[in-house]
Amino acid sequence: MKEHYDVAIIGGGIIGMSAAYHLAKAGKRVAVLEANEVGKKTTSAAAGMLGAHAEGEGDEDIFFQVGRASQELYEKLTVDLQHESGIDIRKSAGGIMKVAFTEEEKNALCRMQHLSTFQWLEANRVKERLPQITDDIIGAGLIEDDVHVEPYLVCRALWQAAVRYGAVVQEFTPVIEVKRDKEALTVKTTSGTLTCRDLTVASGVWSGRFFEELGLSHSLYPVKGECVSVWNSGPALKHTIYHEHCYIVQRDSGKLVIGATMKPDDWQTVPTLGGVEAVIQKAAQLMPSIKEMAIDQCWAGLRPATSDKHPYIGRHPEDERILFASGHYRNGILLAPITGEIIRDLIINQHVKEEWLHAFRIGRKEASLV
Amino acid sequence: MKEHYDVAIIGGGIIGMSAAYHLAKAGKRVAVLEANEVGKKTTSAAAGMLGAHAEGEGDEDIFFQVGRASQELYEKLTVDLQHESGIDIRKSAGGIMKVAFTEEEKNALCRMQHLSTFQWLEANRVKERLPQITDDIIGAGLIEDDVHVEPYLVCRALWQAAVRYGAVVQEFTPVIEVKRDKEALTVKTTSGTLTCRDLTVASGVWSGRFFEELGLSHSLYPVKGECVSVWNSGPALKHTIYHEHCYIVQRDSGKLVIGATMKPDDWQTVPTLGGVEAVIQKAAQLMPSIKEMAIDQCWAGLRPATSDKHPYIGRHPEDERILFASGHYRNGILLAPITGEIIRDLIINQHVKEEWLHAFRIGRKEASLV
Amino acid sequence: MKEHYDVAIIGGGIIGMSAAYHLAKAGKRVAVLEANEVGKKTTSAAAGMLGAHAEGEGDEDIFFQVGRASQELYEKLTVDLQHESGIDIRKSAGGIMKVAFTEEEKNALCRMQHLSTFQWLEANRVKERLPQITDDIIGAGLIEDDVHVEPYLVCRALWQAAVRYGAVVQEFTPVIEVKRDKEALTVKTTSGTLTCRDLTVASGVWSGRFFEELGLSHSLYPVKGECVSVWNSGPALKHTIYHEHCYIVQRDSGKLVIGATMKPDDWQTVPTLGGVEAVIQKAAQLMPSIKEMAIDQCWAGLRPATSDKHPYIGRHPEDERILFASGHYRNGILLAPITGEIIRDLIINQHVKEEWLHAFRIGRKEASLV
Amino acid sequence: MKEHYDVAIIGGGIIGMSAAYHLAKAGKRVAVLEANEVGKKTTSAAAGMLGAHAEGEGDEDIFFQVGRASQELYEKLTVDLQHESGIDIRKSAGGIMKVAFTEEEKNALCRMQHLSTFQWLEANRVKERLPQITDDIIGAGLIEDDVHVEPYLVCRALWQAAVRYGAVVQEFTPVIEVKRDKEALTVKTTSGTLTCRDLTVASGVWSGRFFEELGLSHSLYPVKGECVSVWNSGPALKHTIYHEHCYIVQRDSGKLVIGATMKPDDWQTVPTLGGVEAVIQKAAQLMPSIKEMAIDQCWAGLRPATSDKHPYIGRHPEDERILFASGHYRNGILLAPITGEIIRDLIINQHVKEEWLHAFRIGRKEASLV
Repeated sequence: MKEHYDVAIIGGGIIGMSAAYHLAKAGKRVAVLEANEVGKKTTSAAAGMLGAHAEGEGDEDIFFQVGRASQELYEKLTVDLQHESGIDIRKSAGGIMKVAFTEEEKNALCRMQHLSTFQWLEANRVKERLPQITDDIIGAGLIEDDVHVEPYLVCRALWQAAVRYGAVVQEFTPVIEVKRDKEALTVKTTSGTLTCRDLTVASGVWSGRFFEELGLSHSLYPVKGECVSVWNSGPALKHTIYHEHCYIVQRDSGKLVIGATMKPDDWQTVPTLGGVEAVIQKAAQLMPSIKEMAIDQCWAGLRPATSDKHPYIGRHPEDERILFASGHYRNGILLAPITGEIIRDLIINQHVKEEWLHAFRIGRKEASLV
Repeated sequence: MKEHYDVAIIGGGIIGMSAAYHLAKAGKRVAVLEANEVGKKTTSAAAGMLGAHAEGEGDEDIFFQVGRASQELYEKLTVDLQHESGIDIRKSAGGIMKVAFTEEEKNALCRMQHLSTFQWLEANRVKERLPQITDDIIGAGLIEDDVHVEPYLVCRALWQAAVRYGAVVQEFTPVIEVKRDKEALTVKTTSGTLTCRDLTVASGVWSGRFFEELGLSHSLYPVKGECVSVWNSGPALKHTIYHEHCYIVQRDSGKLVIGATMKPDDWQTVPTLGGVEAVIQKAAQLMPSIKEMAIDQCWAGLRPATSDKHPYIGRHPEDERILFASGHYRNGILLAPITGEIIRDLIINQHVKEEWLHAFRIGRKEASLV
Repeated sequence: MKEHYDVAIIGGGIIGMSAAYHLAKAGKRVAVLEANEVGKKTTSAAAGMLGAHAEGEGDEDIFFQVGRASQELYEKLTVDLQHESGIDIRKSAGGIMKVAFTEEEKNALCRMQHLSTFQWLEANRVKERLPQITDDIIGAGLIEDDVHVEPYLVCRALWQAAVRYGAVVQEFTPVIEVKRDKEALTVKTTSGTLTCRDLTVASGVWSGRFFEELGLSHSLYPVKGECVSVWNSGPALKHTIYHEHCYIVQRDSGKLVIGATMKPDDWQTVPTLGGVEAVIQKAAQLMPSIKEMAIDQCWAGLRPATSDKHPYIGRHPEDERILFASGHYRNGILLAPITGEIIRDLIINQHVKEEWLHAFRIGRKEASLV
Repeated sequence: MKEHYDVAIIGGGIIGMSAAYHLAKAGKRVAVLEANEVGKKTTSAAAGMLGAHAEGEGDEDIFFQVGRASQELYEKLTVDLQHESGIDIRKSAGGIMKVAFTEEEKNALCRMQHLSTFQWLEANRVKERLPQITDDIIGAGLIEDDVHVEPYLVCRALWQAAVRYGAVVQEFTPVIEVKRDKEALTVKTTSGTLTCRDLTVASGVWSGRFFEELGLSHSLYPVKGECVSVWNSGPALKHTIYHEHCYIVQRDSGKLVIGATMKPDDWQTVPTLGGVEAVIQKAAQLMPSIKEMAIDQCWAGLRPATSDKHPYIGRHPEDERILFASGHYRNGILLAPITGEIIRDLIINQHVKEEWLHAFRIGRKEASLV
């Protein structure tokens, strides 16, 4: 391990790798410390929807604005990463079909109707595009901009590109301790010690420990999600089917990814029998023919949630050398590009929108000083 | 491949391997021709219950008598195979707890009450032995003799021991054609040709083709069964839980094997989403806490059924050099020892019970000459 | 299963699926009969190089001409399949770097030097493009047109698109027997019987049986190939590294696929320890740093070889209703498009180059009438 | 999580579970905190040899005495665990055949010749018992007492039995911090906080962090070992083959486990291509026919080494409430029973041999106070 870095990043998931990529590209000497393997935990468990519309509460929301900004960043990022890493992150076309079973659900959806990116379709028109869908729906909102990517490939491409720009990525390197002296930050790991000017904590739900060790309270907790994949034996789905935080996503390998349960405060990264049953039932409700398809895999991931469901992105209130980029809940894949850029801009002293910094600040009620 | 054998056996599952073992031990030169890998299809998919009581309709049944005889053979076989192959086939203690949810089910079970091997237990006494069981039962019949084994290990031990007695086992060797000349039987495979004096077809549900090629009608069809295993995070189950052909079996690896669906005429050896859901629902009905356990694997196997659910064991009605040992339905593991002995005895001209030969004869209505 | 088809195809690998796709697109009613799962055997085992230059003996060869024609077909096919199936078959850029360790190897390679598609690079220039490569080479021939695809995705895309054009694909449906009456061909399978006007045998190395049953000799035999994949922890390979039929191919998942051994007459579809060792040694000779990378998977496939290493593509010499498309040896992925078109053109009576039909005819010395 | 325990144990591998089992059986209220899943890391990676003779330097060694004592404990433990957990830990017969290729190796081995448990066999007599062995050996030392067990099953059986005696085992519960106040020890985890009277650190190589946090220096470092398993297609091995810390062990599933490389200071828990190659080469040197066998799996584990290769077993020199049981290097499976007993005896104030406490003390040169 080299001795001194401009920036050390704890956590090699998609958030940490996005920060590493953007910082290295901006000329910083970056080290990423990953306790296990890059991108193999929460990142790999995600379906990869870029659900700026689908996951938000409406377009008034700060989440919607940031999500849309990040969706736009994916346009350029897809091209850049192909060039820099040789990896195609599989940004799909098609977007999300957010279905309604009741008038109430329809009305909730249609609050987005003034957006040019939202289109209400009656059931028969939904069926034309998605013949596999259940007859029980009354219609759906089509959001073509909420496409999806393959999360592990995004993370891997960021990794490759970051390394190309000089970043050092250490797998199997858990951090033992962070020491803060006036002159430097010292990060002690199982396989050695490094110093750095700035430090970014991006360990998803496992970041809570660092908040505490660095003198901060926080509200991070896991919301476990269980997923199942099947081999699609029928025609490919042209749109992601989405209802009440559940979804069926087409991969171009021919698999469908179905998710996901919501189990707060469950730290187990293995799926239970009951979780798998719940996923199957939901999927069959949306697309009855899926029950005839061959099961492929079951897995689980831990979404890092905060009490207001917004991430922590910003500086330590009392030690500006320390930054956090954690707590992205259901939206880590969507928000990875914008998060990487914010972290970079904070470190290289470029302008970041005040409103965003305020919304995601560490010092908000959930993360005040102890 | 050697040129001439006393006996060629088509099919390297537990039935074919039992025949091979018993014949080789009796001094015959045996070749087993397996299209894929030994024991990796229907044999491996089975839970391994020796359900002479559990699977039968009552003790009047020929199935019960043969099943009991085969259970007894397992006593000696377990010891012999340990000695001959070094493999412990993991014959468990405990037996089956066949539960009743209604008086009607209780009455059906209690038709076995005159048997010394059957014991009716009221719900509270069942709970003492199986605290994990649902509160909804009214009691259960405990059959301690219906223990279980690990099917792949039985098959592998028979394989090792058969080879020790001189048998030749060829994996990845599908049979193309069987020619019957007066002087010899010739078996053509993808990797060469052999001749043999006697031939035994033991390819499970895939035996149907040979019935036809050898001029016989038959009633073989698959009944697909889907299974799921979980990691038991609670105390080990002391007895197999059994209800309506569904079961939860404790493996000493700490896994529970749960099965199985019943899908006639389905040839797919992969589990579907709907099949997995059905298995989970049944398991949770029997043992609610199982829903909290981590899922391990899902798989499927094809039970070879006949129209009367009895196997075909015996000679071709018009060509005594050809024998069949197929169609063991839900009971291939239970009946493997007795089937191997019957095939051996027919070939070496030892006495076999007339009643059994009659019940399992090829020439019964399902398998008359075309 | 529907009763009558224009064309039945035995075998659901990439060759059978290409035939099915082209025929269904041309308006034929097609049934594909696959004994196991579509594309999961030899097709999935392949690395997917389109090695028209790399695999041939030189440009005089008929193989080179047909291979180049098929490479060209991939251009349009990639676009069509994306549109028809939604699947991106991952045609890579970069091509093959065919390395030379000796002057003799250089001279052999440089026989292609007059081709505009071939470029000789001295060692230092190879290193610039492939810093990972061993120092032991003296140079390499770069063939940018010999790109690669992901074989399973090609097969799956052909499948999806064929079904869209009306083809029926039956998995888990082994063929028992083909009967040839004057009025019709009857194909008997484990799960039912169909009739068809034309029949195409495309079962790879397992086609041999049908040659024999249909009265033809043949020279089909397996050449087993064992492969290993690793997670590339360094920069992505910009070109496939190739030497003496061995190769290292970059997948955009971040894996490297390394292959393959050559074991004639070995029917086992599982890799041996010795095979894996040989693959590792060869890979390390080409790219020493690969030894530090984490192993992912090992597998094996059976290349269907003929004595002259050319495929059989054409009609049965005595029954023009029966066609063969088998024996593609190391080049099934490359030749799938052209093979599908030839089969289609024969069946719909369009012109096919005489020279090709002659080279691949069933009636050549290896496949004369018995 | 319950609030207060007599003993908290950090680490749910075989060492932590043995301590938990012995303490719970002695009436203590025990909590085990495991960061991931019980027994799935170093424990599962081990082959399970109880190599008191094979791994030691000779019988003068303290290791030999402790190892022999632990071997003896396995006799009773096997029976107890079968009874308490229902799990058979598969203690094999046969022992180890430690082979010699040279006179020098023979002489080194024969230093054990005065032991009744050691028997020198000339090459021809080795061949009688192990026909698979290479012709290159000049003989072997047979140590029938160095049998093997299945490590995961031992750990699982200890777990089940410990729970039966009241222990609480928490998976997916990494420890964040240990606070030492006068009145109590407080252990903070990701999912809550507990207090305890005594604390035992049994996290294998990951224990180093706790030494440091608790004010101690130490010499713990990983020695990574890579393993491969194959399906034994020949007769079962009657004895483990052993040479220079490499071995081939027969499992009764029919698999052979081959290990293992020795890579100091490598923290990666995934096997590399070069590691797998080295294992294959060594195996083939010992048993040439193994190269023809089908590969099953590759994996890696981290042996926790200290500078004198002895474990740390004992109390913190300045805080007697804190104990360590870490650093068992190649011998965690062998030493698990004796380690569990020593920890129990220290905590319940029973006598432990002074000599052992001295040899394994935390305060020896490698672990003096900072």
